[in-house]
Amino acid sequence: MSTFTTPKGTRDFYPEAMVFRDFIFDMWTQTCRRYCFEHIDAPLFEHFELYTQKSGEEIERQLYTFVDKGGRKLALRPELTPSVARMVAAKGTSLKRPIRWYSIPRLFRYERMQKGRLREFFQLNMDILGIAEVSADAELIAAVIAMMTDLGLDKDDFSVLISSRTLLEELFVASGFAQAELPALYALLDKKPKMSAEEFERKLNEQLHDPARAATIQKVFSYETLDDIEKDFAGIQPLADLMQLFSYLTALGLAEYVRFDIGIVRGLAYYTGIVFEVFDKHKSMRAVAGGGRYDNLVSLYGGQSTPAVGFAAGDVVLGDLLMSRGIAPPVQARADVYLAEFAETHPRYSLELASLLRSHRISVEYSLKSTGFGKQMKQINALGIPLVVIAGSQEAERNTVKVKDMRSGEEEIVDKSRLIAKLSDLLSHR
Amino acid sequence: MSTFTTPKGTRDFYPEAMVFRDFIFDMWTQTCRRYCFEHIDAPLFEHFELYTQKSGEEIERQLYTFVDKGGRKLALRPELTPSVARMVAAKGTSLKRPIRWYSIPRLFRYERMQKGRLREFFQLNMDILGIAEVSADAELIAAVIAMMTDLGLDKDDFSVLISSRTLLEELFVASGFAQAELPALYALLDKKPKMSAEEFERKLNEQLHDPARAATIQKVFSYETLDDIEKDFAGIQPLADLMQLFSYLTALGLAEYVRFDIGIVRGLAYYTGIVFEVFDKHKSMRAVAGGGRYDNLVSLYGGQSTPAVGFAAGDVVLGDLLMSRGIAPPVQARADVYLAEFAETHPRYSLELASLLRSHRISVEYSLKSTGFGKQMKQINALGIPLVVIAGSQEAERNTVKVKDMRSGEEEIVDKSRLIAKLSDLLSHR
Repeated sequence: MSTFTTPKGTRDFYPEAMVFRDFIFDMWTQTCRRYCFEHIDAPLFEHFELYTQKSGEEIERQLYTFVDKGGRKLALRPELTPSVARMVAAKGTSLKRPIRWYSIPRLFRYERMQKGRLREFFQLNMDILGIAEVSADAELIAAVIAMMTDLGLDKDDFSVLISSRTLLEELFVASGFAQAELPALYALLDKKPKMSAEEFERKLNEQLHDPARAATIQKVFSYETLDDIEKDFAGIQPLADLMQLFSYLTALGLAEYVRFDIGIVRGLAYYTGIVFEVFDKHKSMRAVAGGGRYDNLVSLYGGQSTPAVGFAAGDVVLGDLLMSRGIAPPVQARADVYLAEFAETHPRYSLELASLLRSHRISVEYSLKSTGFGKQMKQINALGIPLVVIAGSQEAERNTVKVKDMRSGEEEIVDKSRLIAKLSDLLSHR
Repeated sequence: MSTFTTPKGTRDFYPEAMVFRDFIFDMWTQTCRRYCFEHIDAPLFEHFELYTQKSGEEIERQLYTFVDKGGRKLALRPELTPSVARMVAAKGTSLKRPIRWYSIPRLFRYERMQKGRLREFFQLNMDILGIAEVSADAELIAAVIAMMTDLGLDKDDFSVLISSRTLLEELFVASGFAQAELPALYALLDKKPKMSAEEFERKLNEQLHDPARAATIQKVFSYETLDDIEKDFAGIQPLADLMQLFSYLTALGLAEYVRFDIGIVRGLAYYTGIVFEVFDKHKSMRAVAGGGRYDNLVSLYGGQSTPAVGFAAGDVVLGDLLMSRGIAPPVQARADVYLAEFAETHPRYSLELASLLRSHRISVEYSLKSTGFGKQMKQINALGIPLVVIAGSQEAERNTVKVKDMRSGEEEIVDKSRLIAKLSDLLSHR
């Protein structure tokens, strides 16, 4: 029965895996709310043209596309940004600026399977729209750092590497390159970290057909600091913007998390300013998150021109990083209270107690079939449930129960009228 | 640009709509945890055969199917139950019984659009697997009632109508029907509430070709209480099970929410025992939720025989019901504190304050570009933010801030070292 498996590149989430996923999503949500971002979502599939509008026809290679029964060509979303741009474009100026939106989309890419990559995965997306100033870039980078530190990672675990597309453009154009050459160059430069130095040199020469121009590229990529660049290109605007950005990040107390790295290019064509990627400190994994400025996208979808900056972080690489650091959600018992009973007890009293506890927001597990007391105690231990309420026939007659605290081993007979107070007291001592 | 709209039958979730969706999902999650259900999920698409195995080839009519680039025939999930059965079957006995699982899947059905139906929607699914006893049916019905009441609905708003497939089967077989006739009969009976009495009679005669047999069906459907049935069919097991179920539900304090209704059939072929549906009190809408026992499904997917009972509740009808009752999530301000500043202030002090507040879990909004103070106050009022921290150049020099409580109008100059204590105090008075 080989068809009864998950499709290639997808995952089942049994409870243990789901606790981990929920932990990440809950922490993401907390960070986003503290940074005043509002939650949004869009359809899971969109008209195919939404994606070609932004990325060209070649995007189809990595899309799950299909034609529905009404003849519409649709695609499972590979990213949320086109949907966000469509949503902003559709509402025009009726959305108050700045727009601060977050989402946790489930996404699909038909890609070759490899470490850190699945065909079905999740992302955190955070976007600020309506602010052209570099203060928005700083705010967004502060948010991505908070997302990482809220999860328990710190500056020894990760860095945010920052560069600027407009800076690269100015440097390349000043070095004699034509604008039209740049997109292909960015695509190559984005793959540089995954190549050996020799391979990169060979590909660069293939693309440029000119050793002198290739050397220029290598020179640009050898700049290590903004000060080094300023010596050669004083007073250019992208450099001033980057310096402003680092000054804001320093004021936010984040200097130790961030670093200029001219090697950060981002493959996608639509970035228009500052770009950044978050890497684990050893750069042994793919990027945990990446983003930047995309001021032209909303107008590409027919909206009014809207400056924008955003990032996306995937759940797969981040999950691997958290596990490699031993970070996991706290273990929680499935219930506060186990309601034990004896086979001979009429269930009416147990069910009444279960309702009573639940109406006071106390979670209750009980055996759904006649089971020996020993077996029930085994389950209580296996599930780590802290409190047991024992309602035998004697207790039922007297309107009492026996309460046992599994942590201390203490037992007490409690009148039903005092039960909620007693349990609340014991549960507050966790 | 007509392609830049949502595909037919799908929705954008702008922040306002998303607050409503999150409210429903959060309440669902709370109910499930209090009832000790564990969260799970499965891939968004599955191998096509997973669905035909349960529902036959005709299911394709309402599926979004596609062939991926590897030649696999896949389908967007129209329900989660086949995935749940696959997951349980795959793990065999290594999953501890009883299994109590919940999920909030996003689902897809290519259906004719009508009130309460979309092509992309969400469900709450709750399932108990491993318990054959009717106590599990009672527990699950208690959970669906808690889900409704936790959302603010009460017994004047909805009822749970309960019947039994095995009861119907016994009554029909005792009345001379063959087992093989029953699935087609269930499909017709499930549609009865949507037809006029005349239309139903006509269709019934078409199907049975025998007025006497049609009259038998009408007689079975005229039973109003379990006692009425017992007079004609004393001592049959399905009747005893239903009576046991109602006795448990009464012990749980839920008698006023539940009612026997022989007209509840459920269209799907796979139910094997008790079935139920949740309706708004006026039955003016589609069912809010429906479920029942499906003891054969896990073995259909190659697993060991596992008794099971579950229900699903959709977000669309439930959302309509909540809105018709005026139930909505509490309005929340986007931030606890707005950090106001004057154009001439060096942003360094503001950014330092923003970091300070956020490190103490206080959410902060501030203007990301130079804006007049009046415009900032307008935004504070529009967003309903309760507290304002004003950091002008004078305050920056003295390491103080002015704190303004927008609710009382009171202002106070506070030393930076006392700021967190002051804000925490003010925020605790909400």
